[in-house]
Amino acid sequence: MKIVITGAAGFLGKRLAKTLLAKGTLVGRDGKEQPISQLVLFDAVDYTGPESEDPRVSVVSGDITDKTSVERMIPHDVDGVFHLAAVVSAAAEADFDLGMAVNLHGVMHLLERLRATGRKPKLMFTSSIATYGGAMPPEIRDDTPQTPQNSYGIQKAASELLVSDYSRKGFIDGRSLRLPTIVVRPGRPNKAASTFASSIIREPLTGREAVCPVSPDTVMPIMSPRRVIEAFVKAFEIDAGQLGSWRSILLPGLSVTVEEMAASLERVAGRHAVDLIRWAPDPDIQKIVAGWPTRLAPQRALKLGIETDGSMDEVIQAFIEDDLEAQKAGMA
Amino acid sequence: MKIVITGAAGFLGKRLAKTLLAKGTLVGRDGKEQPISQLVLFDAVDYTGPESEDPRVSVVSGDITDKTSVERMIPHDVDGVFHLAAVVSAAAEADFDLGMAVNLHGVMHLLERLRATGRKPKLMFTSSIATYGGAMPPEIRDDTPQTPQNSYGIQKAASELLVSDYSRKGFIDGRSLRLPTIVVRPGRPNKAASTFASSIIREPLTGREAVCPVSPDTVMPIMSPRRVIEAFVKAFEIDAGQLGSWRSILLPGLSVTVEEMAASLERVAGRHAVDLIRWAPDPDIQKIVAGWPTRLAPQRALKLGIETDGSMDEVIQAFIEDDLEAQKAGMA
Repeated sequence: MKIVITGAAGFLGKRLAKTLLAKGTLVGRDGKEQPISQLVLFDAVDYTGPESEDPRVSVVSGDITDKTSVERMIPHDVDGVFHLAAVVSAAAEADFDLGMAVNLHGVMHLLERLRATGRKPKLMFTSSIATYGGAMPPEIRDDTPQTPQNSYGIQKAASELLVSDYSRKGFIDGRSLRLPTIVVRPGRPNKAASTFASSIIREPLTGREAVCPVSPDTVMPIMSPRRVIEAFVKAFEIDAGQLGSWRSILLPGLSVTVEEMAASLERVAGRHAVDLIRWAPDPDIQKIVAGWPTRLAPQRALKLGIETDGSMDEVIQAFIEDDLEAQKAGMA
Repeated sequence: MKIVITGAAGFLGKRLAKTLLAKGTLVGRDGKEQPISQLVLFDAVDYTGPESEDPRVSVVSGDITDKTSVERMIPHDVDGVFHLAAVVSAAAEADFDLGMAVNLHGVMHLLERLRATGRKPKLMFTSSIATYGGAMPPEIRDDTPQTPQNSYGIQKAASELLVSDYSRKGFIDGRSLRLPTIVVRPGRPNKAASTFASSIIREPLTGREAVCPVSPDTVMPIMSPRRVIEAFVKAFEIDAGQLGSWRSILLPGLSVTVEEMAASLERVAGRHAVDLIRWAPDPDIQKIVAGWPTRLAPQRALKLGIETDGSMDEVIQAFIEDDLEAQKAGMA
């Protein structure tokens, strides 16, 4: 199988690449497990991880907003794509044209390229719970309407519609996952309003101070990188017959308050860790976060066997096992 | 005010042009009624009605799928657009590329052109209840999720998302109306699966036979051309403050069975008219129609003062008053 990961140089892209290379196979459209013969790691920037040394890997850099670039990076005999490339929410809000170019036109270029191969490739598309907004019920369900209140959510929701239609028409075999906030992200804080949710765990674990700009009772649905990578693979491998013509899947999430996150950090890493959280309320960030869903109650994802994290302690433990060493090395 | 109607040569476009010229004014973004100084009638084909003689009217023909053409047809000092141009459902399903080009890329070109004027023009966009599909509740409500099962519905739903976001960003002042099936359409049958709903009224009223391909108990939500034109104007004039950031409005519809349509025709035009309906069930059309919403229960549209028809008798009477003479002349 020839597989492409877009946005491969991002932290989820790298982790997915590593996971797929270790796993070595994927279930294809025929329902059979097949070896991954080629893994194309596509990003706007060069992929620099050790995975690039693997003989199955091709590293391609290019511009998803450019149709020709997309045609070049997707092999004509592609079997599947994990589409992770995106401009994140705050950036798509700050630069409307960039968000549209990457998050909507980029997806349209990709869909057309996949259609042109005539092979009905599988596509695992990453959407977001940012596609919900405005007046929302206390729990987001599979049938909660998407009325996004930001450009990122609009672009993702529109892309989901296209993924379903291209699948219904038989041009591709797509599936869209609506991701909750991913916690604990390794690396450095980014410009997402949600970045604190990772920072308040990650920084104290490396002896650094972290600022928490929201009140302790703030609730967020989260998913660990470990679980989300599992969900990507599971969603890719699910048989199209289980999905029908509607290809969007709301992922489950672990709903925790920020206070519970801190309590969990104390249980796992001790009082000195939690003392490194500085509580400095920022009304702007509090307002943004207050506009997000707080509880996810999907049925479809659970029926398809997609699992979320069991507890905040597990989430932190997974970060310690998977990322802490590299995080500390990166800090050195 | 400079106003543009796209799809002006269609039957709703023509009727809207006539209505706006007679009305002479529209409420602008400042909430004040202003005279219509220029009315641009845009279509892929030349506009041929008597309205083209009005000194306020400019007739422009061009291609909505071509960005440059869209830039040319929309004056730089435009105040408002009624966007009716579209490829209808069956055609968008038969020719995927044409549907995408007109119904999605065309809207994107229009939105970008309106944004580029820097005037935040008003936009009245025609969406459809074809944006609903799949598993639906017995009544479609304002918060019923859109899971369209056809390309036309997908393209309209994606466009609605963009209209809301361009409005939220302050690039335009948009509003999207989700239209039910329009009955009675004048003219000839078209390729829409719903065309029979107009034919079984229109043809008998001119002494012709009409085929009804669905069972008498088939229920459809309909709206008369008269009411839908009223809704276009009302929706255009509504103050943005009443809409907030979510710009989609589900229109109400009169839900009638085909049997009730026939009974109404008999009351209005006599037994000889209804005898011209030939009942010839077509399982393919029955299946398509069965996938559509049967009852609409919007709250928002009603609160905004948008009204539907009181009865099927009124719908038929409106056709007789507004269209029968021209219909008979067209038949001669």
